[in-house]
Amino acid sequence: MGKFITIGERIHCISPVIRAAMETRDPAPILKRAKEQLEAGAVYLDLNIGPAEKDGPELMKWAVKLLQDHFDNVPLCLDTANKKAIEAGIAVYNRGKGKPIVNSADAGDRISNIDLAAANQAICIALCAKQGVPADNDERMTYCQEMLEHGMELGMEAEDLWFDPLFLVIKGMQDKQTQVLAFIRQLTDMGFNSTGGLSNVSNMMPRHIRPIMDSVMIAMAINNGLTSAIVNPCDQRLMETVKSADIIMNNSLYADSYLEI
Amino acid sequence: MGKFITIGERIHCISPVIRAAMETRDPAPILKRAKEQLEAGAVYLDLNIGPAEKDGPELMKWAVKLLQDHFDNVPLCLDTANKKAIEAGIAVYNRGKGKPIVNSADAGDRISNIDLAAANQAICIALCAKQGVPADNDERMTYCQEMLEHGMELGMEAEDLWFDPLFLVIKGMQDKQTQVLAFIRQLTDMGFNSTGGLSNVSNMMPRHIRPIMDSVMIAMAINNGLTSAIVNPCDQRLMETVKSADIIMNNSLYADSYLEI
Repeated sequence: MGKFITIGERIHCISPVIRAAMETRDPAPILKRAKEQLEAGAVYLDLNIGPAEKDGPELMKWAVKLLQDHFDNVPLCLDTANKKAIEAGIAVYNRGKGKPIVNSADAGDRISNIDLAAANQAICIALCAKQGVPADNDERMTYCQEMLEHGMELGMEAEDLWFDPLFLVIKGMQDKQTQVLAFIRQLTDMGFNSTGGLSNVSNMMPRHIRPIMDSVMIAMAINNGLTSAIVNPCDQRLMETVKSADIIMNNSLYADSYLEI
Repeated sequence: MGKFITIGERIHCISPVIRAAMETRDPAPILKRAKEQLEAGAVYLDLNIGPAEKDGPELMKWAVKLLQDHFDNVPLCLDTANKKAIEAGIAVYNRGKGKPIVNSADAGDRISNIDLAAANQAICIALCAKQGVPADNDERMTYCQEMLEHGMELGMEAEDLWFDPLFLVIKGMQDKQTQVLAFIRQLTDMGFNSTGGLSNVSNMMPRHIRPIMDSVMIAMAINNGLTSAIVNPCDQRLMETVKSADIIMNNSLYADSYLEI
């Protein structure tokens, strides 16, 4: 197995600073957050421009070029409901450091994002859900299979579908956490890549607890074969956990300095 | 599943302070370490008196009574190569808070510790090894079965054998870590209890790394069903991990204050 792939979540228009920077095309705040995440060890950066109904394509093009020009063609995850914006971003995207990721398809209304990924030789995050939270892992697997078939028919490689089990919030769905972990193991046993929005797990918990809970969850998920996750790479405890998990899983070679690498 | 059971490792004659206290029957250093571990959340305390060839039975009796008298019959894990000392300790042991644990049997020279546990209605740690490190999980499982049969013939309940996969040091045996984790899952799938000396994993690593690596390993092991471990409960990061793992595994109910409980 390869090293675990972290996707930095912090360039997101939900942040007032990033939203303003996107609206006014102000590079500084976006570059600052990118730099912080890359220095903390993020592999991919998620670029969430929101619905971007007005000028999505133009904004995405601008942001993709901005980030790739400044950070040696950093690989990106293009995150918006605006399909034309994703296409515009991919049109200017440099693949030297990795394929673009389309974030995201599901087995319902958003399944056409698989078509978009297939037509553009992109990776696609495939959320194993249709409407709401899947009741159980049989339901998750049904959606996984639907999306897999759809992608294969369109000529995609299975490895370019990164299946997302849908991480659930502990406060409210504590009894479903082992189900999510078991589904990750099913995906692994079938040879699939996987990903997910990890920080959902600790949503609504006190601030000091979130890095602890997220770290334990990601260690367990990596143990079950999770291959990537959308995370806050500036969470030091989390990144220490990911690096240590890669040592235990034998994905990277131990050296006393491994946390600094 | 029940809550994860931590066995505090810090009353160990390898510590000069503890060794001297045992030799001179000085209660203070032993009580201090016991208090620290129990306040940190240890469930059992390991009581390692070493080979204790001279006055093992007398020493073990003294220490068992000392600890149980001061800490409300705290359950203990009796750890020595001196069988008569274990028997003497069990003779004065109060079972109100849990059976005594015999630490430990293996499938080789030390298999007779299973007889000792069976004769005394004790739990027995059963190391899945005979001579040196098992080559693979087939070998581990062979030893597990040998010890299980031996215990059953003597009338033990299977749940009183806590199988130890033998945690291995990453510095030297990095590529064996997933094997150990897979064996824990096998034990879980067969319905067995399990345990092990966790801190072996990070042996010889720099001091600041050990709590990080141990925490990731125990999260993964608990995810695979490990039911207990011999640990340093004064390692805050480790205990935070154990408590969080119990939340994710649904062994204890989440509350915002769960780390303080």
